[in-house]
Amino acid sequence: MSESMSALRQRLAEIEDLRGATELLGWDQQTMMPPRGAEQRAEALGTLERIAHERFTDDQTGRLLDAAESELAGVDDDSNDVRIIRKARRNWEKARRVPTDLAAEMAHAGSIGQEAWVAARAANDFGAFAPHLQRNLDLVRRYVDCFDDFDPSYECAYDVLLDDYDPGTRTREVSRLFDELRDELVPLIATLSEHAFEDQIRTAAFPVSGQRQLVGEVLRMMGFDPAGWRLDDTVHPFATSLAIGDVRVTTRFDEHWFPMALYGAMHECGHGLYAAGVAPELERTPLASLDSLSTHESQSRLWENLVGRSRPFCDRIAPRIAELAGGPLAALSGEQLFRAVNQVTPSLIRIEADEATYGLHIVLRFELEQQLVEGRLSVSELPEAWNAAMKQYLGVDVPSDADGVMQDVHWSCGLIGYFPTYALGNLISGQLWRQAHLDLPDLDQSLVEGDFQVLLSWLREHVHQVGSKYSRRELLERVVGGPIAVEPFVSYLKAKLGDVYQLSLS
Amino acid sequence: MSESMSALRQRLAEIEDLRGATELLGWDQQTMMPPRGAEQRAEALGTLERIAHERFTDDQTGRLLDAAESELAGVDDDSNDVRIIRKARRNWEKARRVPTDLAAEMAHAGSIGQEAWVAARAANDFGAFAPHLQRNLDLVRRYVDCFDDFDPSYECAYDVLLDDYDPGTRTREVSRLFDELRDELVPLIATLSEHAFEDQIRTAAFPVSGQRQLVGEVLRMMGFDPAGWRLDDTVHPFATSLAIGDVRVTTRFDEHWFPMALYGAMHECGHGLYAAGVAPELERTPLASLDSLSTHESQSRLWENLVGRSRPFCDRIAPRIAELAGGPLAALSGEQLFRAVNQVTPSLIRIEADEATYGLHIVLRFELEQQLVEGRLSVSELPEAWNAAMKQYLGVDVPSDADGVMQDVHWSCGLIGYFPTYALGNLISGQLWRQAHLDLPDLDQSLVEGDFQVLLSWLREHVHQVGSKYSRRELLERVVGGPIAVEPFVSYLKAKLGDVYQLSLS
Repeated sequence: MSESMSALRQRLAEIEDLRGATELLGWDQQTMMPPRGAEQRAEALGTLERIAHERFTDDQTGRLLDAAESELAGVDDDSNDVRIIRKARRNWEKARRVPTDLAAEMAHAGSIGQEAWVAARAANDFGAFAPHLQRNLDLVRRYVDCFDDFDPSYECAYDVLLDDYDPGTRTREVSRLFDELRDELVPLIATLSEHAFEDQIRTAAFPVSGQRQLVGEVLRMMGFDPAGWRLDDTVHPFATSLAIGDVRVTTRFDEHWFPMALYGAMHECGHGLYAAGVAPELERTPLASLDSLSTHESQSRLWENLVGRSRPFCDRIAPRIAELAGGPLAALSGEQLFRAVNQVTPSLIRIEADEATYGLHIVLRFELEQQLVEGRLSVSELPEAWNAAMKQYLGVDVPSDADGVMQDVHWSCGLIGYFPTYALGNLISGQLWRQAHLDLPDLDQSLVEGDFQVLLSWLREHVHQVGSKYSRRELLERVVGGPIAVEPFVSYLKAKLGDVYQLSLS
Repeated sequence: MSESMSALRQRLAEIEDLRGATELLGWDQQTMMPPRGAEQRAEALGTLERIAHERFTDDQTGRLLDAAESELAGVDDDSNDVRIIRKARRNWEKARRVPTDLAAEMAHAGSIGQEAWVAARAANDFGAFAPHLQRNLDLVRRYVDCFDDFDPSYECAYDVLLDDYDPGTRTREVSRLFDELRDELVPLIATLSEHAFEDQIRTAAFPVSGQRQLVGEVLRMMGFDPAGWRLDDTVHPFATSLAIGDVRVTTRFDEHWFPMALYGAMHECGHGLYAAGVAPELERTPLASLDSLSTHESQSRLWENLVGRSRPFCDRIAPRIAELAGGPLAALSGEQLFRAVNQVTPSLIRIEADEATYGLHIVLRFELEQQLVEGRLSVSELPEAWNAAMKQYLGVDVPSDADGVMQDVHWSCGLIGYFPTYALGNLISGQLWRQAHLDLPDLDQSLVEGDFQVLLSWLREHVHQVGSKYSRRELLERVVGGPIAVEPFVSYLKAKLGDVYQLSLS
């Protein structure tokens, strides 16, 4: 390796180390930290964020980039070094636009806001949460202002935010996709509502100890390995990786809603498998930071829904649930489980929503976020706007802000522009699922047999191992030969729901 | 506050934040991290250490110190600001002597060494551990070389190391104290050996779940509060604080050796109470870093031994042990417990040693460390030297390196010069115990009643709240009116052991 490239890599590795330390502070805050540690934790996160920002954005990084770029001119565009430089250059130019103090303020406000959210949500007190959201919005607007004239492809304030969570994605494209998705989902949901059926399975008592056992077994089937993973409890489940060999997922349990723990854990494990599958030679490079959250979400959704809610998986897991849960679930069949976990029912909580209504939860957030950022909606008007949109899109009355506008952690810690990546992930998961079936004629049979390694190997080869070497757009082009699209996901959904509801939905 | 002082405080606060993040990485490594995370954790610790070192030692810190010093000239010597500056100045001058790369190498080697130690100890394989110890020793010698001509009070290489763990303490003083201590302990232990008695209590079966319950209750009595504390399991128990409101202690359990969990937890909780008792206005200042480890150890030892192995505590806790343990302990009396946990028996493992023999475990390490650092003993000769010294001081045959030279974590992570502070802590605990009884006529009665708040309040007022504002020497002068001394500890020990053995030992 050239001397310039080696020096650049060393500098970027330090930034990755700081990122990993920040991830650990965040993981610990949500899983381990005693409450009185919160104030100092916010200070520490602010400091680490500031130092990482200062070191990354300083002139020396720019000089290292210049030197490495000129040395690597003409080298294969597909080499890791070229891609490391390209990604670091873009991130450096973006980060240079953000004053160090603003970055620290955002980290600090996010940490404080998250603590406030936990308390406010528990107390169903939007008034206690509002100032923290307002503060985060003010900071986000100052952040957006930093990118005036930065990139000609930015057409609106929201583009600046989206680009951070899904590099290259723009509001216009998302609006078009979401319009198409909504036009598919609304009539589909209406049709299914006419065929609603009762379900007593998901709310049946399933002791938490048995759920823990089940979750442990399912994650092991997927590839969770205690030598390189952890599973912990938290209020809002998430996945993080401190290293390729140190992946941490969390879940939560409700005795009377076992799908939350099971599918939540499969979801986070899907994220974890992505992080654990990055090629070891990318450790401590920017390419190990998986920054397309829509691609990330395609992995979690694929395992949670396309695998986890499939007929073969339900057939396989139902007897084990019956055994572990006993009681009202003692005679659970695969068919019953398959119907129960694929029932389409407009409901309050995004993370408990089915695959069909889920998209509308996201469309709602996407629209409200744009209004908040652009100042067309004030924080005090937000609960009402939320409740109205829930009524309009899903026909649902929101009984409390805790189960409404305050249900998600994201806004409390300043993550605005993040939600669309969830629905984009669904779309991508549909595209990957179709491609995997084209590439692997034996895929369905392997899933019937409970062998997930065929699918995992395909995902590692095509998606995981390259890390973030390719943009979401490039990656899709390489793997499925085209751009992000709505049709494969909707086709998959209609086929499965047609099976569940015994209807012809195409 | 003046502008210079405010700027200095801000800079020092960042260093404290980095220290706290490093503490968290270390805590997590020992309690939570999956094994495959170790390599990257070592990188991250190295990076954080390097960045903290760079930022603290740069010229800007020196300018801030100069400005604050000149502004505060003439201000009360006892003010926090003056003490912050003085401590930061000394630390800055020390840290400037150490090249950034060396500091990072030490952190990195310590992290790798600790992982290697866990595996080598489990496999009883000193050969696998030796290169890591050698590496740590080489780095320690390079470290010592940085302090040539630094402080006229440094008389030998070991002084440089001691000063880091107990500022102001010198090898000559420790040698004198340890000589006096050994001259007291050796005949005492010989006398008691003639009156050895059988004990079946400590090894009696006590299910771990019951031990957990007991430990939880005892720590709550002491002041452990889940709002600001955590208790976790680890191989080598320790205490750390990430903030005044985020104190973390660990312990370990053995069904057939309950004193390890109980007294280990009381010991670490004693450390934790010290950290949790620092005045809130010292948060994020260098005065919240409790860097006299002998003072720290006086707190842990005081709770573990002077409280925990006292007759009143044993009387109080024995019925609860009987209840929780059942089986062979179902009829445990306070008298039986008191005798069992104060039995003097030369043995292999330092952290399981009684109060009388403990000091000799430390004297042994103090002497071997000096020989290693000065090159009078090689790493390959160490196991033999260890075993010979164990035989000489304690009359004990060492059956395996795992229970011999590899029993402690310290050397694996480069902590050389640390051990003496344990025995110094014992001496200080004896001095504080005597003083507390002079100041508080009702102290004994409060302990009989199981009310630990009288003692805790006294400790907070006289020791905890000032943090590290005063050196160990100054603090003792203020609290007991004299220097560190052997006599109070030995008098306490003889009085208690006289009671246990029904002998006149004075």
